[in-house]
Amino acid sequence: MPVNDQAAPGRVGDVRRRNLSLVMDSIARTGDAKPSRAQLAAGTGLTKAAVSSLVADLVESGLVSEVGLYRDGERGRPGQGLELSSRRGVVGMEINVDYLAVGLVDLGGNLRFHSTVESRNRGLAPEKVMERLAGLAAEAIAAAAAADISILGGGLAVPGLVDEQRNLVLSAPNLHWEHEELNPRALLEGAPLGVRLSNEANSAALGELWYGHGQPDFLYVSGEVGVGGGVIIGSELYTGPGGSAGELGHIVVHPDGPSCSCGGTGCLETFAGQEAIFEAAGIPEGSLGVRTQLLLAALAAGEPQATQAVHDAGRYLGVALASSARLMDIEAVVLGGHFAVLAEWLRPALLGSLARYAPGLLHPENLTVSSLEHSGTLLGAAGQVIRSVIESPFEFLLASKLA
Amino acid sequence: MPVNDQAAPGRVGDVRRRNLSLVMDSIARTGDAKPSRAQLAAGTGLTKAAVSSLVADLVESGLVSEVGLYRDGERGRPGQGLELSSRRGVVGMEINVDYLAVGLVDLGGNLRFHSTVESRNRGLAPEKVMERLAGLAAEAIAAAAAADISILGGGLAVPGLVDEQRNLVLSAPNLHWEHEELNPRALLEGAPLGVRLSNEANSAALGELWYGHGQPDFLYVSGEVGVGGGVIIGSELYTGPGGSAGELGHIVVHPDGPSCSCGGTGCLETFAGQEAIFEAAGIPEGSLGVRTQLLLAALAAGEPQATQAVHDAGRYLGVALASSARLMDIEAVVLGGHFAVLAEWLRPALLGSLARYAPGLLHPENLTVSSLEHSGTLLGAAGQVIRSVIESPFEFLLASKLA
Repeated sequence: MPVNDQAAPGRVGDVRRRNLSLVMDSIARTGDAKPSRAQLAAGTGLTKAAVSSLVADLVESGLVSEVGLYRDGERGRPGQGLELSSRRGVVGMEINVDYLAVGLVDLGGNLRFHSTVESRNRGLAPEKVMERLAGLAAEAIAAAAAADISILGGGLAVPGLVDEQRNLVLSAPNLHWEHEELNPRALLEGAPLGVRLSNEANSAALGELWYGHGQPDFLYVSGEVGVGGGVIIGSELYTGPGGSAGELGHIVVHPDGPSCSCGGTGCLETFAGQEAIFEAAGIPEGSLGVRTQLLLAALAAGEPQATQAVHDAGRYLGVALASSARLMDIEAVVLGGHFAVLAEWLRPALLGSLARYAPGLLHPENLTVSSLEHSGTLLGAAGQVIRSVIESPFEFLLASKLA
Repeated sequence: MPVNDQAAPGRVGDVRRRNLSLVMDSIARTGDAKPSRAQLAAGTGLTKAAVSSLVADLVESGLVSEVGLYRDGERGRPGQGLELSSRRGVVGMEINVDYLAVGLVDLGGNLRFHSTVESRNRGLAPEKVMERLAGLAAEAIAAAAAADISILGGGLAVPGLVDEQRNLVLSAPNLHWEHEELNPRALLEGAPLGVRLSNEANSAALGELWYGHGQPDFLYVSGEVGVGGGVIIGSELYTGPGGSAGELGHIVVHPDGPSCSCGGTGCLETFAGQEAIFEAAGIPEGSLGVRTQLLLAALAAGEPQATQAVHDAGRYLGVALASSARLMDIEAVVLGGHFAVLAEWLRPALLGSLARYAPGLLHPENLTVSSLEHSGTLLGAAGQVIRSVIESPFEFLLASKLA
């Protein structure tokens, strides 16, 4: 809702703050349509003069750029289209058990640079891992410089519970990290918005919401060494009262199942995590890429042990999704990570399991595979910073001393 | 936040609407403290004149009553205390598999009359059950008349999924009802707010929120023939995108478990529902009251089959709660229905199970038994109507042609 400047004299700052958000959000929502100032005025209910003044600030700050000339329909003067700037970017970064990744995402959500390296991070000291990640971040910084993109900030996703405010990894069992303080800001020295720590599955779910699947309600399933989940309800991440919701990998799928790295028993992860599948399939130790290729080859050849391992993973994933659907009224699921890679082989057992444990609840057409492949987490980690700029451009202008 | 009448000329109705809610809510929150008009003005930021005028409307409508005279501290004139009227009430009603219940709840949340009768409703036609319930509702109406309480409306809770807007029971497997339309309004002819249909476990959870446990985040576990759940997050009922969340009884606790009335397999209800426990314990068929007494006697005598049955129920309840804690970040649980009755016998196995499946997540002291005994559902069903009056007194005044 637009806010009338006259309504609350003396609080012009607040009004401008809200109207900047309104205009910025309208430009972001319109996306490829690249609205003119006149269209923004019509869409927001603000006057054309107010829109022009707000847009001037956003353009000056570099958050919004003007693109070409075009006509609003048949009549009127040609207007300039507006879009979120492709010359401002955020670096998404991910630490996972077997790899590190960075990506450069511009404000429009385009992945402009992407690099992943295998890295056996389990049991490594956080400083060591952060050092390696800094090397990868330097590549993103160089790519940004080459493309004349100014970096506003970054997001760093890790496979564990985090305290974002204090830059703490509270618990990341698959890395063997407990209560480790990181210094993510050091990865992007001088970036005005710093670097924001987040959970990997939550970031991937948000990436899917903003740049992929896009439906307002779904459960994202993250398949890595660990199995994670991110619940999106009403286009918001459901975090729960303590911030640790979505631990799909630790739903109990068999009360007499194996012990889990979390200390629990019979968790989904013990049947459907990457390593659990490799082991059950009899794939020898090795790098993630090699093992994945071996597994896919075995599946393609109809090798029984591999087929059974993936069937079991699909079956138990179905048990966990059935329980999730009952408890949270989940009606759509997006599979990511190795569940996306293995979807073809996993899907029959998964659908059979859903029919057995939650008949009629999760329709097969609402069970989809992420289209973001391995960039969902990066996009989501960066996207959280981009969303904060879209929602609060005034704070960004203040931080940049432009307000 | 108070709204200034001058800010939006021509929309005085809206402002009055919001300020009536603000005053009504302040009186409700203050509860036993019975605030004076001056205290309300101080608490809301409204002027004393505005508060006096708003309170006059609320008193005239009968929603608020004045009680006694007392002094605000040492100085000033004595003021009259205000409270939600004890002469306005809402009838809470419950249809369950083995019984029917009604209760008369005044606006302050006091249960003024309560009656429960055993009634084997499974497989009975809804009209038949509603006819029986009407007899019970007549008792509540008579009790209200005797106590000079005017009935504003009612709430009717059923053990199934409902479409409140269309008075539909979508599915209540333990009653064998599928897509049945009810006419709850007929139970309380002439009540200005009609009768609102709701889910039993959700109503019990809300009853617990408003009149019992009172913490902002918890999972209420309803133990009847069916096992249900109501999730309260941030003092709101979590309903999920489609309104059917909280189906704790149909979380899968053993993938090779028995078939369930819901069509699923290995659901918690098949191990921990009332009838499942009676059967496993070897308690012969009979009325609910008699069976419960027999079970409690067997437990007290240390009879092994009964002990094992309750132990198993506790163990599997622990599995479902562990999975719920992982997915929704549940940190507190309130046990109701037969889980409350059996708590002493159930608790050791339940705690052992939580330690095994979700170590460190749900602390024993956060696992409590409902203090509302069998009235939680009634209080919650009525409470939803009471909350709607507290939140929107203006709409009530309009409906009563008092605005």
